[in-house]
Amino acid sequence: MDFSSKLLENAVYEMSQLPGIGKRTALRLVLHLLKQPEERTSRLSAALENLRKKIKLCKNCHNISDVELCEICSSPKRDRTLVCVVEDIRDVMAIENTSQYKGLYHVLGGKISPMEGIGPQELTITSLVEKARKGGIKELIFALSSTMEGDTTNFYIYKQLEGFDISTSTIARGISVGDELEYADEVTLGRSILNRIPFEGSLKAN
Amino acid sequence: MDFSSKLLENAVYEMSQLPGIGKRTALRLVLHLLKQPEERTSRLSAALENLRKKIKLCKNCHNISDVELCEICSSPKRDRTLVCVVEDIRDVMAIENTSQYKGLYHVLGGKISPMEGIGPQELTITSLVEKARKGGIKELIFALSSTMEGDTTNFYIYKQLEGFDISTSTIARGISVGDELEYADEVTLGRSILNRIPFEGSLKAN
Repeated sequence: MDFSSKLLENAVYEMSQLPGIGKRTALRLVLHLLKQPEERTSRLSAALENLRKKIKLCKNCHNISDVELCEICSSPKRDRTLVCVVEDIRDVMAIENTSQYKGLYHVLGGKISPMEGIGPQELTITSLVEKARKGGIKELIFALSSTMEGDTTNFYIYKQLEGFDISTSTIARGISVGDELEYADEVTLGRSILNRIPFEGSLKAN
Repeated sequence: MDFSSKLLENAVYEMSQLPGIGKRTALRLVLHLLKQPEERTSRLSAALENLRKKIKLCKNCHNISDVELCEICSSPKRDRTLVCVVEDIRDVMAIENTSQYKGLYHVLGGKISPMEGIGPQELTITSLVEKARKGGIKELIFALSSTMEGDTTNFYIYKQLEGFDISTSTIARGISVGDELEYADEVTLGRSILNRIPFEGSLKAN
């Protein structure tokens, strides 16, 4: 693309560095900002700068937070013996939305992925093992996605925790509530049969 | 969505104000920035701020430009008697890419659209009429999209220019080069038959 303005070209270039945003979309977004009052652009860039400069990670669970210890970790209502291991803040938000979980979280910041150059030291695994060593945790729930990377990460952490008196579990995989059996993929349907639960248990969950 | 951080919530909100970007996408983009070096965010917000504050519109054609008079308007190689009326900078870029046009442009900044509250005074039509009054323009080419709004705008400008010795034309509508007739829509195919050109003319175009 040939731009008539260096300023425009630069803005489009920076915008197109965001994931999933190509040059054309970037141009559309930037032209939109130009049509809006100047204040809109100031607010956007200030919000991004502020976030990047002032953001903290909770020193206990490593979730994104404005303060040293996040709301969940500092809440007296939370069960401190239960820790759910997740990949990032989106997973925390998804689980919090269910209102079904009252324990704490541990945000890894990613999954082990040799292909992308992410090893265990890039994640917050050492901090998790440290927390386990200090005691107080009874159960660790693995809630990573069930991909090769997720499974590898689960297994790596599982191995690191050998010798500690902590039980581990993973979230249940199965047919989504309301889904038809005939449209489910075989792996999910297979797992949901293997990991079937007593009927009384399923009554309790509702 | 419940955010664990006001800074994050604010950044996601501002991001989601961009067209076509929902809350989920905004969160993904913002989290991506958080994983990147701080400098990336600074560069993005500086580029946007700079663009919004320093951008100029060419005083002749109203295209986006870094200087008072854009490259095209100040080029001695351009035919000043020919003016192509377009909606915005993207159209200028598209036509420039063809290398087939050697005249000047006039960027309207939109189309007349009562539904969106855009009247003639929101566009640069007065400036176009002023240019026509000054003389020197022989032909005006309408290159707006052939929608109701585009046609209305064309006609409005056409009416404003009555009495001036300026010929007007619109870009040709027809079957795209390389397209099969059977897949073309009827309106386009109909127009391409009505507006057929002498065979010798089509040879010249290649």
